[in-house]
Amino acid sequence: MRRLDTRSADFESELSALLAFETSQDPEVDARVAAILADVKARGDAAVVEYTNRFDGTQATTMADLELTQDELKDAFERLPQVQKDALTFAAKRVRSYHEHQKMSSWTYEDEDGTLLGQQITALDRVGIYVPGGKAAYPSSVLMNAIPAHVAGVAEIIMVVPTPKGEKNDLVLAAAYVAGVSRAFTVGGAQAVGALAYGTQTVPQVDKITGPGNAYVASAKRAVFGVVGIDMVAGPSEILVLCDGSTDPDWVAIDLFSQAEHDEIAQAILLCPDAAYIDRVAASIEKLLPSQPRRDIIAASLGNRGALIHVADLDEACAISNRIAPEHLELQVADPKAWVEKLRHAGAIFMGKFTSESLGDYCAGPNHVLPTARSARFSSPLGVYDFQKRSSLIMVSEAGAQTLGRVAATLAHGEGLTAHANAAELRLK
Amino acid sequence: MRRLDTRSADFESELSALLAFETSQDPEVDARVAAILADVKARGDAAVVEYTNRFDGTQATTMADLELTQDELKDAFERLPQVQKDALTFAAKRVRSYHEHQKMSSWTYEDEDGTLLGQQITALDRVGIYVPGGKAAYPSSVLMNAIPAHVAGVAEIIMVVPTPKGEKNDLVLAAAYVAGVSRAFTVGGAQAVGALAYGTQTVPQVDKITGPGNAYVASAKRAVFGVVGIDMVAGPSEILVLCDGSTDPDWVAIDLFSQAEHDEIAQAILLCPDAAYIDRVAASIEKLLPSQPRRDIIAASLGNRGALIHVADLDEACAISNRIAPEHLELQVADPKAWVEKLRHAGAIFMGKFTSESLGDYCAGPNHVLPTARSARFSSPLGVYDFQKRSSLIMVSEAGAQTLGRVAATLAHGEGLTAHANAAELRLK
Repeated sequence: MRRLDTRSADFESELSALLAFETSQDPEVDARVAAILADVKARGDAAVVEYTNRFDGTQATTMADLELTQDELKDAFERLPQVQKDALTFAAKRVRSYHEHQKMSSWTYEDEDGTLLGQQITALDRVGIYVPGGKAAYPSSVLMNAIPAHVAGVAEIIMVVPTPKGEKNDLVLAAAYVAGVSRAFTVGGAQAVGALAYGTQTVPQVDKITGPGNAYVASAKRAVFGVVGIDMVAGPSEILVLCDGSTDPDWVAIDLFSQAEHDEIAQAILLCPDAAYIDRVAASIEKLLPSQPRRDIIAASLGNRGALIHVADLDEACAISNRIAPEHLELQVADPKAWVEKLRHAGAIFMGKFTSESLGDYCAGPNHVLPTARSARFSSPLGVYDFQKRSSLIMVSEAGAQTLGRVAATLAHGEGLTAHANAAELRLK
Repeated sequence: MRRLDTRSADFESELSALLAFETSQDPEVDARVAAILADVKARGDAAVVEYTNRFDGTQATTMADLELTQDELKDAFERLPQVQKDALTFAAKRVRSYHEHQKMSSWTYEDEDGTLLGQQITALDRVGIYVPGGKAAYPSSVLMNAIPAHVAGVAEIIMVVPTPKGEKNDLVLAAAYVAGVSRAFTVGGAQAVGALAYGTQTVPQVDKITGPGNAYVASAKRAVFGVVGIDMVAGPSEILVLCDGSTDPDWVAIDLFSQAEHDEIAQAILLCPDAAYIDRVAASIEKLLPSQPRRDIIAASLGNRGALIHVADLDEACAISNRIAPEHLELQVADPKAWVEKLRHAGAIFMGKFTSESLGDYCAGPNHVLPTARSARFSSPLGVYDFQKRSSLIMVSEAGAQTLGRVAATLAHGEGLTAHANAAELRLK
């Protein structure tokens, strides 16, 4: 695993190289996706069924063959071992309880003229959640997407999940049951995104699509942005561990693994001012790697994009962390509350040695859908606020129309917009 | 102007035709924009200067020629007539005061195990605001984009505004002064978006770009989404007036004009249960149109995309309004507070007869950057919240690690993510 030192003359260029990641779109993927979307928009169900049979190896004849009933979701839950049922239910409860804190409320105030101003908050009517299928089927993602929508008050939640060769994942279906998904279709890819964005004879049109997917899904979400809302275009997973050397090095090694195991282009970085401690983490990595079932992926990820970085002190570590703006940031220091305010850009901050990133992934309560690829500079974890929106409220009093009207007319005339000015002037006494 | 009636057998198809608007992207524009963006990314200042000279007819030799100094902004303000100075200052104060109500604060709570949960709110570091130049130069847009960023605590606000043939608009520069823009460049188009998104030798890279622009700007913003945040891709302006017949029909006619005058594809619609009142509004339109300086644009817009719609009652009007999800919604009824909660989807709601939409455009306080093209179904007015973001906070106690750890391990094993499970298990006693 790469070792860097901020005191090295080459550090700046080494860090830039480490962080460089080509997120640019693939024009060939975009073109294929555009064709699929246009076809789904034009032909609806028939197109979705055809693409699903072609790409997922299914034998559906109608869209009804690709819909999961509420009974199927419930049966999947009932089939689970008790320990999994309890874990899903516990996680859902914690996630719901945390997200209740995010719910926004309407607000208004009156100014001195009696003019009322504010914002009315409403939930989206209907949302679509995309759940990846196949190898990387994550029931926790169902909870993390559907529960905030529920808390927001979204009336209808439509889930899509591809089932390659028709193989359904009981945990995913059970999570949909626990999270209260309204309808579920076993479709994926750009065709699923198109069905949700435009609606088909069977799939209702949604107002927003959330959830991660492969390159085709990402391209399709980007293409339909505007027709519907989207959450974000997710990149590879990242963890940055900022450590003062007080945490068991085995714990830090495993925490780095826990992002590295996602895929070969995930990024795991340690920042530490204690060179001897970095050696101990490196030793833990060597010791613990061979017993990991996903060791090949972890080794590739740590080799490709991982780094152990020796920093001058924790202040410098915070500055580097802000530059990286990581998805997951572990603050493994003795007094995390003293440092957290220096961390300006991160999807989620895991404070103190007991807070492994994986607790946040499943059941601590906060959302695990987080901004990647430095987008924590400008965006936030998925939340209830993504499923609510605001309408400005303005109720101008007769007195207010006199003061506001003169100013508005002056500015409107300045912009050459006479009708705007006249609308204000007509309300003057 | 088109007259529709909800009781007509063809109403559904007529309404659909009225609302249909092709917002799809133009592949030719996208391709030209992609080339410009790639060039700006590769060559920086030199490319920006070349494109600006070519598209805007300027004769700059270096990027410094295209930067406005703080003195130039101040001088532009000082040159204005007193009434315009006062109007800009008054509007800025109102907009600032309203937006102060939107500022989000960090929050935390502790659960029964002593685990701390919450979100830390931070401002974006640096944002870019795009201000259209030329014919449609709107100083009010400078205020509406820059002030929320300021209130959020954004440290640096970079404005770009094209100046075709080098012509600068004093009101726009003065608004930049009043709003506290940090740096300003006289560049526009895709090259300006590229400079802000990637940074050049002179233009600093920003974290988010907001503000409206032409098709090239919209395409460029869409392309750089992910590298930086963007606000929204704006469509033609829209107004929907929902009226019970109690407002002076001249006022309603002028309010319809005030959106129609923006451009030929703007949309102005009236919904009213009183057929005789609709006749009076139609008469007002005929009477008032000839004296409007922008009458050709207004007539084209009302003819192309406008409609006077006779509805059964106000409840039906609300249902149609929710389907349209208009950018601007005037609720011209005797008791607007009784009706506002039925309106689920709108950018801004202007309540009561004294609230002309144009008051909101300039100085009532709320933002005039609003979701268009039905996107009020899922998005909100530009606000302080667009310039702040959240980081989840999780600090699990030792006791919390025991309960959460078992659940996380169960779910992680269920997903086949052993390192995730191990990270939780290592923290168990």
